[in-house]
This record gives sequence, structure tokens and C-alpha cells, in this order.
Amino acid sequence: MSDVSDWWQTAIIDMEPGRIHLRGHPIQNLIGNVSFPEMIWLMVRGDQPTPDQAKLFEAALVSAVDHGPQAPSIAAARMAVTCGLPLNNAMASAVNMLGDVHGGAGEQAIELFQHIETHPGNISGALDDWIALHGKIIPGFGHRFHRPTDPRAPRLMELVQEAVNAGACPGSYQKIAMAAEREISERKCRPIPMNIDGATAVIYAELGFAPPLARGLFCLSRSVGILAHAWEQIQEGGRNKGPTPPGYRWTYLEE
Amino acid sequence: MSDVSDWWQTAIIDMEPGRIHLRGHPIQNLIGNVSFPEMIWLMVRGDQPTPDQAKLFEAALVSAVDHGPQAPSIAAARMAVTCGLPLNNAMASAVNMLGDVHGGAGEQAIELFQHIETHPGNISGALDDWIALHGKIIPGFGHRFHRPTDPRAPRLMELVQEAVNAGACPGSYQKIAMAAEREISERKCRPIPMNIDGATAVIYAELGFAPPLARGLFCLSRSVGILAHAWEQIQEGGRNKGPTPPGYRWTYLEE
Amino acid sequence: MSDVSDWWQTAIIDMEPGRIHLRGHPIQNLIGNVSFPEMIWLMVRGDQPTPDQAKLFEAALVSAVDHGPQAPSIAAARMAVTCGLPLNNAMASAVNMLGDVHGGAGEQAIELFQHIETHPGNISGALDDWIALHGKIIPGFGHRFHRPTDPRAPRLMELVQEAVNAGACPGSYQKIAMAAEREISERKCRPIPMNIDGATAVIYAELGFAPPLARGLFCLSRSVGILAHAWEQIQEGGRNKGPTPPGYRWTYLEE
Amino acid sequence: MSDVSDWWQTAIIDMEPGRIHLRGHPIQNLIGNVSFPEMIWLMVRGDQPTPDQAKLFEAALVSAVDHGPQAPSIAAARMAVTCGLPLNNAMASAVNMLGDVHGGAGEQAIELFQHIETHPGNISGALDDWIALHGKIIPGFGHRFHRPTDPRAPRLMELVQEAVNAGACPGSYQKIAMAAEREISERKCRPIPMNIDGATAVIYAELGFAPPLARGLFCLSRSVGILAHAWEQIQEGGRNKGPTPPGYRWTYLEE
Repeated sequence: MSDVSDWWQTAIIDMEPGRIHLRGHPIQNLIGNVSFPEMIWLMVRGDQPTPDQAKLFEAALVSAVDHGPQAPSIAAARMAVTCGLPLNNAMASAVNMLGDVHGGAGEQAIELFQHIETHPGNISGALDDWIALHGKIIPGFGHRFHRPTDPRAPRLMELVQEAVNAGACPGSYQKIAMAAEREISERKCRPIPMNIDGATAVIYAELGFAPPLARGLFCLSRSVGILAHAWEQIQEGGRNKGPTPPGYRWTYLEE
Repeated sequence: MSDVSDWWQTAIIDMEPGRIHLRGHPIQNLIGNVSFPEMIWLMVRGDQPTPDQAKLFEAALVSAVDHGPQAPSIAAARMAVTCGLPLNNAMASAVNMLGDVHGGAGEQAIELFQHIETHPGNISGALDDWIALHGKIIPGFGHRFHRPTDPRAPRLMELVQEAVNAGACPGSYQKIAMAAEREISERKCRPIPMNIDGATAVIYAELGFAPPLARGLFCLSRSVGILAHAWEQIQEGGRNKGPTPPGYRWTYLEE
Repeated sequence: MSDVSDWWQTAIIDMEPGRIHLRGHPIQNLIGNVSFPEMIWLMVRGDQPTPDQAKLFEAALVSAVDHGPQAPSIAAARMAVTCGLPLNNAMASAVNMLGDVHGGAGEQAIELFQHIETHPGNISGALDDWIALHGKIIPGFGHRFHRPTDPRAPRLMELVQEAVNAGACPGSYQKIAMAAEREISERKCRPIPMNIDGATAVIYAELGFAPPLARGLFCLSRSVGILAHAWEQIQEGGRNKGPTPPGYRWTYLEE
Repeated sequence: MSDVSDWWQTAIIDMEPGRIHLRGHPIQNLIGNVSFPEMIWLMVRGDQPTPDQAKLFEAALVSAVDHGPQAPSIAAARMAVTCGLPLNNAMASAVNMLGDVHGGAGEQAIELFQHIETHPGNISGALDDWIALHGKIIPGFGHRFHRPTDPRAPRLMELVQEAVNAGACPGSYQKIAMAAEREISERKCRPIPMNIDGATAVIYAELGFAPPLARGLFCLSRSVGILAHAWEQIQEGGRNKGPTPPGYRWTYLEE
């Protein structure tokens, strides 16, 4: 079977009948002994966080679980169950929506911070370069709904400060993000504070996660709200509830 | 706007600019103060677990994160990234696979336990009725790969016993599941031990979750392994890696 | 490689480098020589329709392409592109919505017709049995929006009559559906005419398709409208357009 | 309701109870009178093809329906039904896989042709620029399985020639693609013929479709094979058939 020998290769799991090892640990030693966030960290990265790192990581996961049914992902979950889908398909429909625009801001914010990192002492030039390449929407700052301030961000940044004080992370991305916030606000002549994507990006970057994982971890976190809303809608009932109110007309042309 | 007034209705989230309340709690009071499993519980149910309940709940979430790429969900995640999909779409493709056969056994096992509950003292008759209705595959017992024993189940049942001892849950579903295990094994004249779906079903039923939530919570848990495998495959690279080894022929007809 | 010999087995396609046979036909002989509906028929069933059968089949495919953005599938497609998803992921998000409630009525209507077929001369008893088993929503009849008449159904039934006249199909399901329409309308004391799901179910049943294929073929047909709407929304732009109007509140609780 | 007045806007469909207009045509006038490919064209673009254009368009749709279960999309469809998913969810799982790598080559090939178009008389320079920007994989040429020739491409190009002769399309992208084929083959010192993605890209570009629609139309076409394979697998049965043969080990580490 030499031609299949390299088909799937994984360092995550090794098993045989009666034995499951995850990242080298017998699963029965993990169950009941590691927290769910520690398990997420172990599975995705292979190593284990310190208690202070795990605490900061957990705060980020907790913070992003929901933003209500005006978020397309939550709406998709609720619509899906009214179309008769069970929870797994409803959750998939919703997570699928977390694309570049709806679920990508955290990933893009880490990329922004890493870009700024390569322009030491020149935040303004770094931002100009970024805008030239990616357009004027700066990921991680400002919020079209939560004005002036997304209530999740300051709380998360408080916890980042505690983690830096405890030596759980270096604080370099914290500084970059705060400098970016100042620079962007000055340019706009009004506060453009960090939003949840910016704050979780600081946390994930401080803890050493690669940018795409900010999106992946957001998907895990938002899946909680998705499940909660899908389940609530199942209990409420309803059939084929669409995304526009009954009686609302959506055509361009009146005849 | 009276005709839209009942469009989406939720008791999960209430927000206005600058304010997000989840299940009545300001989100900034939850971040850093509740664990991720406690947040999942709160979002899905509206109430909060005791510490012992949260611990048992967390063990169930930890236990089901992965079963390797021979599970169609994990395979779908890895294939998806080799097709060029970002993490959110890869995760959705994978969670979508967790249908009745691949992700429904926990839900079905709770239904089985609740069915047995309505036949007090008559486990044999209850099982006969169940088999007549649903066929001979008993959800939650036996494993086609892990013979004789799925290593996750005994560890989880140990933690159930601890929780019962601590008064965190009544133990009624624990008893039902153990009686069912004995009955099924006697009928087959060999041990047919509880598997992970049976053991997590005991936990979710003991903690008062409705059957469909066993599937929903399994989706949350397995999403962790899905993310880990998708990310590993992104790092490995590969293009359009299909589900059969190169060179393998799958046609019925040789011409 | 004996242990993989039965892994995937298909009679649909056979290929080797430089050669692709679909259902036994070299693909280059099909391209430009069979119509797209004939190809769909060939792929799904293995045989080929007569020209009159192909014409009737094509009419069913044409009829169901769209029902506007108040259908959750179309809405999902449009939302998805505003979340940044490319067309394939947007189309998948939409097709996923075509569950039992949104995409299953045609399948259920064929099942209803086949159920009535087993009660010859006793349409009333057949309907009573059906309602006892499946509840009072009769698949294929009535429409919550198109009152009194879904304009697609009479046109399709006209084409069924032409096909019966031409000997392309036997007309037995046509008769059953028309008898059911009369019975249901009499019970309700008002016209409850066949809708598109009922009419396409007649066509697919007349042509010998199994019930689940009514859903599958509906997915193919509706994918056309899904693509058209997703593409229109891409051209319109918009970011994270949710399913509720901006400013609309969806919470139960005012605080 | 002024704040919802611009929520969804469409020129595709206009309806009220009892009336459905698609692109301005009453649907009952379309059913039975336009072919399925003509309906696809009308829905996506708003105009109607000539008979010769419709014929060429239909050939492209027919050509791409299937490439067997070693294609991840087809595999996903088959896996999905063994996980218990009904056809709509299985089809969605499969179409979701048609990302940049698996379903994007046609779109990329049109972009390549349009890029070459902006370098008149300088195919070599155009290719150099393309490779510098996008890497050395040239979309639409060569095939890792069909060596030397993908049997679908020459047949499609024959039909392009017929269409050009009939005045159905200008032939400018035909010329560009053939010049690219020569240039690429010369560089490699062996034939690197157009593949199906290249040939369908020629057709879609000749007929005036925007590049993303090559992907969207491929999704429609491949959905046919996806449906056929999903349905075949339902009939075959099987539970949780994964992507690796039973007994195959996929771990890096032997312990």
C-alpha cells in the first residue's frame, strides 16, 4: 500500500482499538483534567498554556459568542431551523457565513499588527502602506453599531494588561494596537476605539496564534451563540422564516 | 412597523449601541469571570451551572473533540482546505457532516434513556420496544473501532459518579445507562460497553439538556478537532486531496 | 490493496488518463449532442429519456428556479456574498437551507401520491391515514403567498396533459393529484389548488423518479435562482447585510 | 417603513400573490417555452441568447458534470449521505468544496485571457507578468490526471469553432487561448493542452460572462454529478464511510 502511505498525515491524533492519544496524551488523562480552552489550545497548537495564558485565552473565547440576529451568521442559524434543518446543518450554515467580511476582521487585525511591527517607530507610514494595499477599512477599529465604544474591547484590554503584568505575554501587540488606535483617532479627529476584533486579535497575537487562527477561534466562539439561537428558534417554531418581513417588497420595478 | 414586530424574537441577547446583555448579564461582567463552558451553558439555557455541574459539563466537551481523519467530518475539513477554502468554510463543511449517523448518536441515546425511564423496572421490554421502532443499532453502546472498550466512556462515567456523590446531578440516567449496558451485553453474550455517545448522553441528560442539544454540544466539541485538523492541513499544503488514494479505481465496471 | 477494493463503487463514471465515460458513453459523444436536462437524467438514472419525456422534465426544471429573497435559500445566498463568500460557498449556504420544510414538499408530495396509489378508489381514507401519520399540512397543495393560485402549477399540468396525450407518461399520478386536489378543496370548502411542489411531483412521479429525487432536482433547479441572486448582490455590494432591517429590535425584553 | 426600503433590491424577480415575473417575463410563458440553459442565461444576465449561443452554452454545462469520487466535491457528497444527510445537505457540502483550487480554475482562466487581451501581440510578456503575479500554475492548461489530453477540451473547442463560424461569438478568446496553449507548450517543450477549465472559460468569455460566473456555472454543472453520486450512494447504503480505507493509518508517529 505504498501509494497510500502519505495520504493523510497528522500529528494531532494517534489511535488504535481501545486507545486514543491526542497530541501524545492518552485521552482519559485529559478528560476531567484540562479545561475546554486548554484542550482547544492543545489540539490546535500541540503545546499547553500556562494558567495565566489559559485565562486570557478563555476570556477571548467568551467575549465573541454572540451579536444577535442582525449578524448574518445568527440569522442564518435561525432561518435554517425554520427550513427544517437539524442543529448540525443549521450550525454549519451559520459558520459558513463567517467569511472575510463577517468573520475575517480578527485575522486581518493580526496581519495589520504584524505589518506595523515591521515598521518600528513609524506607525503613520505603516498605516499609509496598509491603506494603500487594503483600502480604508481598518480591521479591528471602530464599530458601525457600537458607538462610540464596543463594550467588549475595554474589558478585554484590561485583561491583557493583567496578563502582561503577570508575565503571561510580552505586551508588544498591546502597545502596537494602542498606538494604532491613537493614530487612527487622530486622523479622524474623533475616537475610533478598538472593537472586539481588534481586542481579540491583540490577545491571539500576544499568545502566539497565527492570523488565520483568529478566524478559526472566532468560529468556535460564535458557534456558541449560533447553537443558542438555533435552539431557541426550534423551540419557538416557525416555518420558512425569511430574512425580510412579510409583506415587504424587494423588487426594483413597480409595474 | 407593526408587521415586522414579531419577526425575530430572542431572550438570549439584548443590545443597543455601546451595550450588550447576554441572558440579562452585561457582557463585560461575563468576560474574565465565567469559564467558556459556563458561557456555553448560560447561552444555551439561560441559567448558570454550579461549579460541580460545570466541571462535569466541561469533561463532556473535552472528551469528544476528535476521532481522526477516518471520521468523515475531520476528513471533510482536511479536504476542504486542499480545495482552497478558508477556515470558516472548512469548518462548516465538516460540521455539516454531523448528521443522524455521524453526529446523532448522543441525541438518540438520550431519547433511549428517556424511553427506558418510561418503562420503570422493565428494561427488557423497553429495549424490545425501542428496537421494534428504531432497528437493532442501539445508540450509545458498542463501537465498531474501539473493541472492546472506548477509552473515553469509563473515564466519563467515573466523573459522573463523582458528580453524583457531590450532589451535582441525581444519577437516574447513570443507573438507566448502566442497566441498559448490562441488558445489551447479556443479550449479545459479550460485553457491549457504553461508548462516548452513551457516556456524554448520560452527562447531558443528568444535567438536564434536551436530546437535540446532545448533538448541538457535540458539534461544538468536535469543532475543536475540525479546526485543529484543518489548520494542520493548511500548514501541510496539498491541492484537491480527495478521499481515495491516487491510483485507486472506484468503478464497478472494467472495460 | 484488497482492503480498499470496496471503498467507493460507482456505475456513473469510469475513467483513466485521457478517457472519461459517463454511464458508458464517452463524454465527447455527449457534449454538444445531449441537452443539459437529458444529461441530468442520464447521470441520475443511467438511461435516456424520449424527446417528449425530456421536454416535460425540462419544464419542471425551468419552473422552480426562483421565488425571490423572501425564500430563506435566496436570502441566504445574498447574505452570504455580503459576508465576503465567493459564489461556491454562497450557493452551498443556500442549497443547505432546502431542508424538509423549504425543499422537501415535492419529495413528500410524491410519497403522498404513492400512498394514495395504495388505496385505490378510496382517496378520502388515504388522506385520513396520511393526516393521522404526518399532520394536517398536505404537501403539494395550497400556497401561503400565492392565493388562490400558484401560477406555475396550471401551466405545468397543461404540459403533463400534453405529455400524457403524446404517450410520454401514463397519467396515473396526474389523476391521483387531481383527485386529491378535489378532495382537499371539498374538505376546506374552498379551492386548495395544487402548487409548484405538487405539480413538479406529478411530473417527477410520472417520469419514474424516486421521491428523494424530487428534492434533489429541486436543488438543481433552485440553484439557478440562487446563483442569479448571489451574483446580483455581488454587483450591488453591501457588507454583512443581515436579515432584519437596520434599527429593527428583536429582543423580547425591554429594559 | 422607509428604513427598510432599500433592504434587498432585485431586478430578477417581481411577484405578488398569483403572479411571478422573472426578468420581466410571466413565469407561465417561460415554462415549456425556454430550455433550461436559456433559463439559466436569462436569470443570471437578464437577456436571452440566440439559438447558436444557447447551444454552445449548453455544451459547456454538459461537459463539466462529473469527474468521479476522487474529486473532493463528489467524495464529499458520497460521504455526506453515509453520515445520514438528505440530498440538499449532501449537495451543499459538495458545492461548498468548489473553492479556488477545486472550482476556481475556470474563473482564473477567463482572468488570464482578459489579462492577455490587454497585451496585444505580446503573449510571452503577458504570461511572464501573470506568472510573476500568480505563480507558475497556469489555469486552464494541462491536467494532472488526463495526460496528454483532457478529452473534453478538444470537443468543446470544436463547438467553439462551429459557433464562431455561425457568428454566435467573435472568436477573440478562442484565439487568445490557442495562442496561450502554443506558448505554454513551447516553454515546456511538450504539449500542455487546454483542459476543461480552459475550454469552458473560452466559451463563457466568448459569450460575455464575467469571470466569477465561470465558477458559478461550474457549480451548477457539477451539481449534476454531485446529485447523481449522492443518490447512488444512498442506494448503496453504508454508514460513516470516511475518506481513508479501513485499516489505513494516518499518524506521523508510531509508538
